[in-house]
Amino acid sequence: MKTYTFTKSYEMFEEAKKYVPGGIYGPRSPMFLTYGSYPCFLERGKGSHIWDVDGNEYIDYMCSFGTNILGLGHAEVEEAAAKQAELGNSFTLPSNRWNELAKRLVGLISGMGWTVFSKNGSDVTTYATTVARHFTKKRVIIMANGTYHGSHFWCTHNTNGIPPEYQAFVEYFDYNDVAGLTAMFEKHKEDVAGVILTPYHHPAMGDQVMPADGFYNAVRSLCDKNGSLLIVDDIRCNFRLHLNGSHVYFGAKPDLVTMGKAMANGHPIGACLGTERLKEAASGVFFTGTHYFAAVPMAAALATMDIIEEEGVIEKIAKLGASLRTGILGLAKDAGLSVVYSGPDAIPFMRFENDPVFDVNRLFCGEAAKRGVFLHPHHNWFLSAAHTDADIEKTLEVSREAFAAVGEHLAKKGA
Amino acid sequence: MKTYTFTKSYEMFEEAKKYVPGGIYGPRSPMFLTYGSYPCFLERGKGSHIWDVDGNEYIDYMCSFGTNILGLGHAEVEEAAAKQAELGNSFTLPSNRWNELAKRLVGLISGMGWTVFSKNGSDVTTYATTVARHFTKKRVIIMANGTYHGSHFWCTHNTNGIPPEYQAFVEYFDYNDVAGLTAMFEKHKEDVAGVILTPYHHPAMGDQVMPADGFYNAVRSLCDKNGSLLIVDDIRCNFRLHLNGSHVYFGAKPDLVTMGKAMANGHPIGACLGTERLKEAASGVFFTGTHYFAAVPMAAALATMDIIEEEGVIEKIAKLGASLRTGILGLAKDAGLSVVYSGPDAIPFMRFENDPVFDVNRLFCGEAAKRGVFLHPHHNWFLSAAHTDADIEKTLEVSREAFAAVGEHLAKKGA
Repeated sequence: MKTYTFTKSYEMFEEAKKYVPGGIYGPRSPMFLTYGSYPCFLERGKGSHIWDVDGNEYIDYMCSFGTNILGLGHAEVEEAAAKQAELGNSFTLPSNRWNELAKRLVGLISGMGWTVFSKNGSDVTTYATTVARHFTKKRVIIMANGTYHGSHFWCTHNTNGIPPEYQAFVEYFDYNDVAGLTAMFEKHKEDVAGVILTPYHHPAMGDQVMPADGFYNAVRSLCDKNGSLLIVDDIRCNFRLHLNGSHVYFGAKPDLVTMGKAMANGHPIGACLGTERLKEAASGVFFTGTHYFAAVPMAAALATMDIIEEEGVIEKIAKLGASLRTGILGLAKDAGLSVVYSGPDAIPFMRFENDPVFDVNRLFCGEAAKRGVFLHPHHNWFLSAAHTDADIEKTLEVSREAFAAVGEHLAKKGA
Repeated sequence: MKTYTFTKSYEMFEEAKKYVPGGIYGPRSPMFLTYGSYPCFLERGKGSHIWDVDGNEYIDYMCSFGTNILGLGHAEVEEAAAKQAELGNSFTLPSNRWNELAKRLVGLISGMGWTVFSKNGSDVTTYATTVARHFTKKRVIIMANGTYHGSHFWCTHNTNGIPPEYQAFVEYFDYNDVAGLTAMFEKHKEDVAGVILTPYHHPAMGDQVMPADGFYNAVRSLCDKNGSLLIVDDIRCNFRLHLNGSHVYFGAKPDLVTMGKAMANGHPIGACLGTERLKEAASGVFFTGTHYFAAVPMAAALATMDIIEEEGVIEKIAKLGASLRTGILGLAKDAGLSVVYSGPDAIPFMRFENDPVFDVNRLFCGEAAKRGVFLHPHHNWFLSAAHTDADIEKTLEVSREAFAAVGEHLAKKGA
């Protein structure tokens, strides 16, 4: 199979470094991804396919880190967005879409009585902790080690330029470790405002872990016993596991749910939902942003949710994900390689055994990228409804070659 | 003049309260604006005009709190946005617009060597303080009393649900008070990371204040003497005072500049720019968000900046603002009413004398709204390039009636 070159991408990356610190920041940087094995800039995309600035085509399993659940440039979503753009997007007051989206979301997400909208996921995870603190009049937020709840001060992992005081009252435990969580509640008796959890554990740089049997019941019971709240941060899983919220998929009973990513198929919007009893407290928390009220992403969200519901998207991507899992695991076995494949089929992650800093996975994913399949070596992947059986087939062909490259590399290393 | 009714708006507001805490949050709430005198929801907008859900038409002097510098639905901006949307918006990697916008902004904004992009204004004011802290290895940020730099923990005015520790290392002084600022530097000797200022003082609920002669030189000199940085938060003034940044208009020499609001004429994007010497430190600060990389707002920003430059927008809105000021002040005088008109002509604010909680201004602005002119009783207004001489003329007709209503009210009250 012919492999790609990324000449223009890296020329542009050098140019980017002149104008932007590091050229590209965050997890989209080629320095973070795998320098040299990936493109740096994209020219266009459609459905499950993306084209880089060198003209190389890829099947995209990152879906913009989750947003494109229906694929890029989905006709009906873009039509709804364009129709609203004709009327107006950024208004001095909210638009007609405000009540429509609020009513739809509250009706859709199980157990929730109200909602607010924002731009970023971080906007709503931070808001959820603030509502929890204001409602409970307590201070401590407990989160799982290794979890990403956004880039705001209280939860960011890189603390350069952030005084330690800004991360006070945040405590950590290991996902699924009920004893550890219980101990943390005991340590902060009377002062735990809430526990924030992703529906299942999807850390950066690690295997994905499903909630253990009884975990959510134990968390709920600890929260109830201590007058604390449970926040489920559904931003990354949004609408890939259950139409009524990933907490339903896992049987969790949260007080607050945060959403984002896939909810408007790439249009910028986040949401926090809460139970009825928190509504008055929530109205006392300051929350605003110039673009929080923009109508186009709300129109796009309404269209996206309709399509997810009407077209059985959740079932479809689970099925595609199952084909991918079965195929990849079979190929790994054929190649005599030991891999760990974790997470739900719609949001999978694969790594190699005995590959603590993902060097082997970087090689595998880089070889896949050079052959037109965009995976990620240390962040979970995403399926979308735009992926096709042909995409999966091509992905498996490419994976076979990438596994072969890994086999050769390991053989050389062993020799 | 026939006055408007807002039947459907308030029906919708009641419905909104079922699904959203308080119905509408932030400064767009009718509870905050003036309950009963304003619409609550908008149906559509074009240029400088907006239509509410009851079919009432307004000349909009809020421009979505600043974003719509060229007016709603500007043909060329929307064409650039639509063209990019065809290629893709929310990609797994940055698009071609990344370098184009970074290069353009760095070339345009005086003294700046690099930039980053975000969604919200708060994202970049927070980032600027973090870069300042990381670069200086100091902790204290000094800001002016009454200034709004966003809704994040460190600077928000409503602290419900926010532990006081999250606002540590933030100190306040009175805008223009060099002695007060000097004292604050002395109080935190060796520990001042930076001073953050809006280009001129535009507080909520107060007169706008221009920087005093020598103020910026004094600030610069204090910063230099103490190894601290000057951040100019240009989000609200963005491109309404000077094409190269409002700091040029006022002769300030910042280390960091934040932008947003008008930079993409309503498409969601914020930016922070910094001087070359801060670039390496900036690359060490974690900064990311799912939608920070979206290409459509970048395409819209490029088009917006081109139009502002080519069509002399800054001069145009200053001239329109001067007509508004002259007209309104003349009408106030004719009506025998004492008003205070403050700020630059492009971003004016008017209040009545002896009206400490803006009751009289609420009456005035409410009477104007009921006649088709959307002003704000306690937040500055915005001119746009879409406003016309006919808009100003109509605004003055309406203002004459609104002043008359105020005159009657005060006469009754006095009687």
